Amino acid sequence: MTVRPSGTLYGVGLGPGDPELVTLKAARILKTAPIIAYFRKKGRPGHAWTIAASHLNGEATEAAFEYPVTTEIDFREDAYVDAIRDFYTESARSIMHHLAEGRDVALLCEGDPFFYGSFLHMYDRIRKSFPVRVVPGITGMSGCWTAAAAPITYGDDILMVLPGTLDRAALASHLKTADAAVIMKVGHNLDKIKQALVDAGRSAEAIYVERGTMQGERVVPLAKLEDCAVPYFSIILLPGGRGRRIA
Amino acid sequence: MTVRPSGTLYGVGLGPGDPELVTLKAARILKTAPIIAYFRKKGRPGHAWTIAASHLNGEATEAAFEYPVTTEIDFREDAYVDAIRDFYTESARSIMHHLAEGRDVALLCEGDPFFYGSFLHMYDRIRKSFPVRVVPGITGMSGCWTAAAAPITYGDDILMVLPGTLDRAALASHLKTADAAVIMKVGHNLDKIKQALVDAGRSAEAIYVERGTMQGERVVPLAKLEDCAVPYFSIILLPGGRGRRIA
Repeated sequence: MTVRPSGTLYGVGLGPGDPELVTLKAARILKTAPIIAYFRKKGRPGHAWTIAASHLNGEATEAAFEYPVTTEIDFREDAYVDAIRDFYTESARSIMHHLAEGRDVALLCEGDPFFYGSFLHMYDRIRKSFPVRVVPGITGMSGCWTAAAAPITYGDDILMVLPGTLDRAALASHLKTADAAVIMKVGHNLDKIKQALVDAGRSAEAIYVERGTMQGERVVPLAKLEDCAVPYFSIILLPGGRGRRIA
Repeated sequence: MTVRPSGTLYGVGLGPGDPELVTLKAARILKTAPIIAYFRKKGRPGHAWTIAASHLNGEATEAAFEYPVTTEIDFREDAYVDAIRDFYTESARSIMHHLAEGRDVALLCEGDPFFYGSFLHMYDRIRKSFPVRVVPGITGMSGCWTAAAAPITYGDDILMVLPGTLDRAALASHLKTADAAVIMKVGHNLDKIKQALVDAGRSAEAIYVERGTMQGERVVPLAKLEDCAVPYFSIILLPGGRGRRIA
């Protein structure tokens, strides 16, 4: 009896959105992996797939996993949490089926696989049973501060990455002590974040960034942002500089 | 009289160290720029140059700027600060000479140009006089958490990036409230950082990483690190996970 060697799961970081910001390593794996897997919203090509598309060879088998509910809402309700947990478990099972048959799977990851994001749900479910390799990518926040031409940290700056889901008091308290900050998951948290920035005395420094490095990129001083509704994945930056050691 | 169009300064992020973690965009600029500029320690090829070397075409003019003092020491003394400030001003002048003559300059940057690092000294000195474009790169810390197979942030985690130069009380206080943390510039701050981790009750979680994604890469639980002296650019990671929303 021969034992078929199992396949490897590659978590492939694709960077912030511009397909040219994919690494050589990621591009090599995208060109050669027999299975290309990714998450997407129902009825959409998928953001990760869109970044990767020009690097694919067209011969791989594609496995698209469609979210049963949007991931952009706050998971307070048990029904949502259950639905999405089952979805991740099913997706992992499907990936493991390929791995067990000896086929490598490249799972497309926006940004960096180990920095937030859906890949971690697969990683936690698969790594005990199959080999997993991770290709780091440029984070979305890095794409945003580059798009804003805003150096984020100098010298001895403290940088805090804060989810917009934090309550107003916690946000304000962290924003007071950080030299530089990145507030993620803005969306419907926008008003609360604005209030916290006022509480911390840092409204004037804040920069709003949407779709950094992508088509439709938008950079506005937060004070001039007139929208009431903004996308979940937009970001607010507070550039550093207080930690400069050499002027 | 014809006016010669000026050159553009490209701040080229090279990522954490593995030459295959360079982006397609960075590789394209490295292949085509007429001037390749970089910082290095005296008598060394330079870390940035080493990452870029396999992507260069061998025909560009190279401009190596050699630090007059090591950048790995703490700049408390005025003489050091003055020497390094003059060095940056001279380096910027040399780059601007090429730009004024219409030649593009690619300045090699380890990691991401806008995330700490020497590029910012050039950026601040040159951007008012000449066009500057920045190519983001994978940060060194991202290379380190990938090397450690340690997902750094889940769901609603707060991530803090803390310089090891902070005093023990400030470090401990931040480490208590952070879900995930990256402590940079470890070097001779190692003992103080260890004490702050004990104060914050988080010693057991800490991972020490040296030369992430490079030759000589080393990943050790901090509790098992026996060295008294470690490199300045080593990193300590506290992986997150308390902000998980879906288990």
